[in-house]
Amino acid sequence: MTDLSRLIRPHSIALIGASDRPNSIGERTLTNLLDHSEFEGTLYLVNPGKTELRGRPCWPSVSALPTTPDVAVIVVPAAGVLSVAEECTARGVPFAIVLTSGFGEAGDEGERAQARLKEIADAGGMRLYGPNCPGLTNVNHRLGLTFSPSFPHDLVKGPIGLATQGGGLGRNVMQAMERGIGIGLWASTGNEVDLQVADFIHYMADAPDIKVIITLLEGIKDGAKFVAAVQRAAANGKPVIALKVGKSAYGQKAAQSHTASLTGSAEVNSAVFRQCGVIEVDDIDELVDTAWLFARATPAASEGVAIYTSSGGTAALTADAVGTAGLTLAQFSPATLEVLRTELPDYAAVDNPVDTTAAVLSDAALIEKTLSAVAIDPNLGCVIVPIALDYGNTTIQLARTIIAAQKGCATPIIPIWMSDRLGEGYRMLVEAGFAPPRSVGKGIKAIQRWVEHGRWRREHGADEPMTITAVPAPVSTTRSLSEAEAKQQLEAAGIRLLPRTVAASVDEATSVAATMGYPVVAKIASEDIVHKSDIGGVKVGLDNADQLRRAWQDITESVRRHRPDARIDGLLIEKMAPQGGSELMIGVTRDPVFGHVLTFGMGGIYVEILRDVTRRTLPLQPGAAAAMIREMRCFALLDGARGRAKADVPALEALLNRVSDFVVRHADRIEEMDLNPVWIGAAGQGVIPLDAVIVERVDPGVSA
Amino acid sequence: MTDLSRLIRPHSIALIGASDRPNSIGERTLTNLLDHSEFEGTLYLVNPGKTELRGRPCWPSVSALPTTPDVAVIVVPAAGVLSVAEECTARGVPFAIVLTSGFGEAGDEGERAQARLKEIADAGGMRLYGPNCPGLTNVNHRLGLTFSPSFPHDLVKGPIGLATQGGGLGRNVMQAMERGIGIGLWASTGNEVDLQVADFIHYMADAPDIKVIITLLEGIKDGAKFVAAVQRAAANGKPVIALKVGKSAYGQKAAQSHTASLTGSAEVNSAVFRQCGVIEVDDIDELVDTAWLFARATPAASEGVAIYTSSGGTAALTADAVGTAGLTLAQFSPATLEVLRTELPDYAAVDNPVDTTAAVLSDAALIEKTLSAVAIDPNLGCVIVPIALDYGNTTIQLARTIIAAQKGCATPIIPIWMSDRLGEGYRMLVEAGFAPPRSVGKGIKAIQRWVEHGRWRREHGADEPMTITAVPAPVSTTRSLSEAEAKQQLEAAGIRLLPRTVAASVDEATSVAATMGYPVVAKIASEDIVHKSDIGGVKVGLDNADQLRRAWQDITESVRRHRPDARIDGLLIEKMAPQGGSELMIGVTRDPVFGHVLTFGMGGIYVEILRDVTRRTLPLQPGAAAAMIREMRCFALLDGARGRAKADVPALEALLNRVSDFVVRHADRIEEMDLNPVWIGAAGQGVIPLDAVIVERVDPGVSA
Repeated sequence: MTDLSRLIRPHSIALIGASDRPNSIGERTLTNLLDHSEFEGTLYLVNPGKTELRGRPCWPSVSALPTTPDVAVIVVPAAGVLSVAEECTARGVPFAIVLTSGFGEAGDEGERAQARLKEIADAGGMRLYGPNCPGLTNVNHRLGLTFSPSFPHDLVKGPIGLATQGGGLGRNVMQAMERGIGIGLWASTGNEVDLQVADFIHYMADAPDIKVIITLLEGIKDGAKFVAAVQRAAANGKPVIALKVGKSAYGQKAAQSHTASLTGSAEVNSAVFRQCGVIEVDDIDELVDTAWLFARATPAASEGVAIYTSSGGTAALTADAVGTAGLTLAQFSPATLEVLRTELPDYAAVDNPVDTTAAVLSDAALIEKTLSAVAIDPNLGCVIVPIALDYGNTTIQLARTIIAAQKGCATPIIPIWMSDRLGEGYRMLVEAGFAPPRSVGKGIKAIQRWVEHGRWRREHGADEPMTITAVPAPVSTTRSLSEAEAKQQLEAAGIRLLPRTVAASVDEATSVAATMGYPVVAKIASEDIVHKSDIGGVKVGLDNADQLRRAWQDITESVRRHRPDARIDGLLIEKMAPQGGSELMIGVTRDPVFGHVLTFGMGGIYVEILRDVTRRTLPLQPGAAAAMIREMRCFALLDGARGRAKADVPALEALLNRVSDFVVRHADRIEEMDLNPVWIGAAGQGVIPLDAVIVERVDPGVSA
Repeated sequence: MTDLSRLIRPHSIALIGASDRPNSIGERTLTNLLDHSEFEGTLYLVNPGKTELRGRPCWPSVSALPTTPDVAVIVVPAAGVLSVAEECTARGVPFAIVLTSGFGEAGDEGERAQARLKEIADAGGMRLYGPNCPGLTNVNHRLGLTFSPSFPHDLVKGPIGLATQGGGLGRNVMQAMERGIGIGLWASTGNEVDLQVADFIHYMADAPDIKVIITLLEGIKDGAKFVAAVQRAAANGKPVIALKVGKSAYGQKAAQSHTASLTGSAEVNSAVFRQCGVIEVDDIDELVDTAWLFARATPAASEGVAIYTSSGGTAALTADAVGTAGLTLAQFSPATLEVLRTELPDYAAVDNPVDTTAAVLSDAALIEKTLSAVAIDPNLGCVIVPIALDYGNTTIQLARTIIAAQKGCATPIIPIWMSDRLGEGYRMLVEAGFAPPRSVGKGIKAIQRWVEHGRWRREHGADEPMTITAVPAPVSTTRSLSEAEAKQQLEAAGIRLLPRTVAASVDEATSVAATMGYPVVAKIASEDIVHKSDIGGVKVGLDNADQLRRAWQDITESVRRHRPDARIDGLLIEKMAPQGGSELMIGVTRDPVFGHVLTFGMGGIYVEILRDVTRRTLPLQPGAAAAMIREMRCFALLDGARGRAKADVPALEALLNRVSDFVVRHADRIEEMDLNPVWIGAAGQGVIPLDAVIVERVDPGVSA
């Protein structure tokens, strides 16, 4: 990827369309650059109608500039953008930021202009940011390449990097500065004609002033680029916290109409996020709570949490939420318990949760001593201090105590401010950098994600980087291979299948069956027919030649009646699956963003009614097959539940990996694949796909 | 239940332990009564050490008072409470509030004092509130029977009634007044030695100034009383919104150690809440958001929601959350679309969600006209206006517009304030009574509950009131009936079972089997053995006399080896279940709070691995059996999914109702019952319990 350092920390900038017309984009951007930035490089103002602006020289055009700027900030009206872009490429400008609207988001004409803009930039080797965006807000280095009138207030520097598409939601996150959240850099990429959110995640992954990355996505344009960027962040130990719109059909539709970007499937998105260790959240405020916890501390290996409060009801409420979230209340060490028992009154609860009772809340020394004792306990990863009430001075004292206790320990103390009264105690905590979550549920959700990501890092931090298969342009024509052909390809890929032969006549069928041994299955053999059962094209459990002959007649008659058009190769005669065992399903689809995705689950009702499936992009990483099998809700069924025999899980892992290899090797042509059912026997008996559908792309030049 | 009007709006009050010692409970309570209440009745101060307090006469004792007060507020130290209580009962005081701590919450001695306090009150016919509580806060009538120094700030009158046990969490809800939430009455019942949360819910159900009831529960002491109270509220059209601690083991343990009250099972609690239309929430802030929506408006029959915003990203985010919550985006009427198309720019989104775009945000008249057009659309129940940003004057203008638009329509407009910046626009919305939720997720959760409760009222508003079975004191001794005995009782109750006989000898067994016809099942018959299969006590699928004889020998040998002590009646010979069909399970347990509870689900893995069960208290209400069956996730399996035959659901409904009748008729003795598996055939084939366990209480006086 292109190094974006010169875009984000340029040495020279040209503002094209600089203006002094109050409230114009040109004037607002100029004001941000002159009055609210601390830019020490060269700033050129370009406006053909002026010779001077705010006491600075004004240049008539980019070509007239004495040197080539690192960044051209383009704020001229939409109609003028294309010619300015051409000038910039002619001059060899490496980066352009187009703040102007009226492109892809503004109907057909805008889309055409946007396509032309991309052509100009691509042809000239100029990287483009925007159009239709508020710009780039570099808080840590005080540089506002933005028209936003809010830039003067974006003053809380910090370790969070924010990469968004739309400006509105990004600005919402920026306003968390009000809670003391420090955001060092905000890129809002607008229409993403060239540079995307992923490019900025990639930049932030390497930027020394950014520790934690937040991203807000309506759609992902380039899956491979996104995966590379978030893995770069993971490799550098930086968590990426993402909110992706499009979990419901309403959200998908609205996001599509807003950004015209593909939203892909929410399930696939979430699966990719999990694979790459991206922390997915469900609401925009959760981005902030979660990111700030990561900014404050790296998750410890000790996953237990402590609760410290002076209200019994609050202790119970918080403990309840901790349990519901699947977190663990830490066991205090003997040293901690000793301090708590000695210092707190008899009627206090000293075991986790600690309830000091309100009676001692006014004794600041005692609170600080006991809270500190809890916070340095080695058995835990964080301390939650739920504050149910703003009780004025008492609460101010508590805030002071929390701030003091935190100074003595690395374990994060996490106050949760539950009250709607935001008094001085709240303000003190904000100023001291605690940015207290505002609800027990939201606070604990952040902690849960923090703990789980710590576990992910320990378990997957050293994994090889994952790759995904390419996403070619969609084709309108595909074709299904016949079952016989599909199975032949799978067998060639080392996948075990049952003996089978396509018989062209009933006599051939009985002879084939006699050789392989009864019982057998007979299925119509035709590449025109995918759903064979639906039209009476399948007979199972045929025990002898008579039954097979009758089946031949029944099947051929039924198929002729339902599909007189279909080309028939005969009947596929196949050995029956062994007795016993269970049914699984394995599917592969091509996601428009992330390429091939493998979906796996127990067959029949488990997948159809219970939706108990897991997903991974292909190729499967080492260990992924084993993990997929075990993360199914119904895994117990394969693992000997209710007195069943344990299933042949190693063979299943091998099958999943062979399917992955096969699809990756034929990634250019395979659009879809369905092994359903797949038979799995007891340990040692193996795994056998009983049916197989492969759907291929058809080259538009070749008729099927 | 006792009418609590004289407790909550007394004509005369005695404050026993009134004091002028700064910061004592007696002084704080006195200050609240004199300086911060608007009490026009008679107030007696009682303190034997004073003749006068703050210029008012002081009486030496309750017995010395000129008249009998409606309420005695007791704030003397714990050691003196019992004798004061005795004085009060002697005087015939109808209600006492004991604010003093040091009772049930304070060890064995405190518990003994509390038991004695209850005896005194019961014997004297005096109703008791407390002890160990902050008191009673009557905001709507400005009467503070409380020592809380916060009472002077509890000034936002309103339609919400709040009933809590602990004071801390209740006070947290009270601080929502900061957001404009009006809470008319708060009862915080402390140790609940007599009056419970349920008594106050009952009062609020009838109180004309209360429209919506919030309750916060750590445990429920009396299930029947609670059920009666919340049904009273439902009958009067008042929603009850509840947060019950104890959803996780941690929460149960912490609540138990805090209040010493039984928490019961979270699943049973939630089932009862659903049955009674109590709206259960997961976090304390959700209580407030949800209650306020009900306070603002009754859910409409039109369930659709509208989204109105000026940011495309926010529209997509909110639409996504609406979809994820299972809510419906309303279809606008032609008239609404006409206004939107005419007024908004071309590039705005006029379909739901409405995205005006930020360009027109400054045009207040246009915003008000279009927002009003949406809000009066008859096809929807509410309008969400997510406000992602505080943009100063623009946002103030938006707030003004929302306030104006709301004046013209009954449909609630719900602004969601997403920003951490709480500026003037926010304050205006708070003052105008919108109490904006602070996160999209929380706001939409409130709307979801509001919509769902509206549906519940339409579907269940006219149901007969439900009752529950009694909860006697626990017994330590129970006994399991033998399978034969259990089945005989069920058959007598009209439940269809398979033909079966206990055979005392192998010859009797073969003769019995010949009569009923093979195949048969043979099971050990002994009331000492419940888990028959585990010790080789069951043989199924016996096709002839030889197999039966072999089974007799195998079973008796195996049982003798495993359980040489067991008294054996012989073997139960039973006809095999018909071929095909599915397995179900029906269980009955006795909940320590809500009496008998029936649990029903698909058998085997569905219940054991997927926990796909539903629950109801007994007796089942009309329609409950049908609803239970249909609310199972796996119902499709009984309804013909995947080409199965439709199961005999009417017979299953009849069985559930017969089980309910049977248990209710024998409620005094039945502790537990387990029909597992229950066979269900295709329509017309019926439903048959194949195994039956009944566990009875054993009267301590009678040896088993």
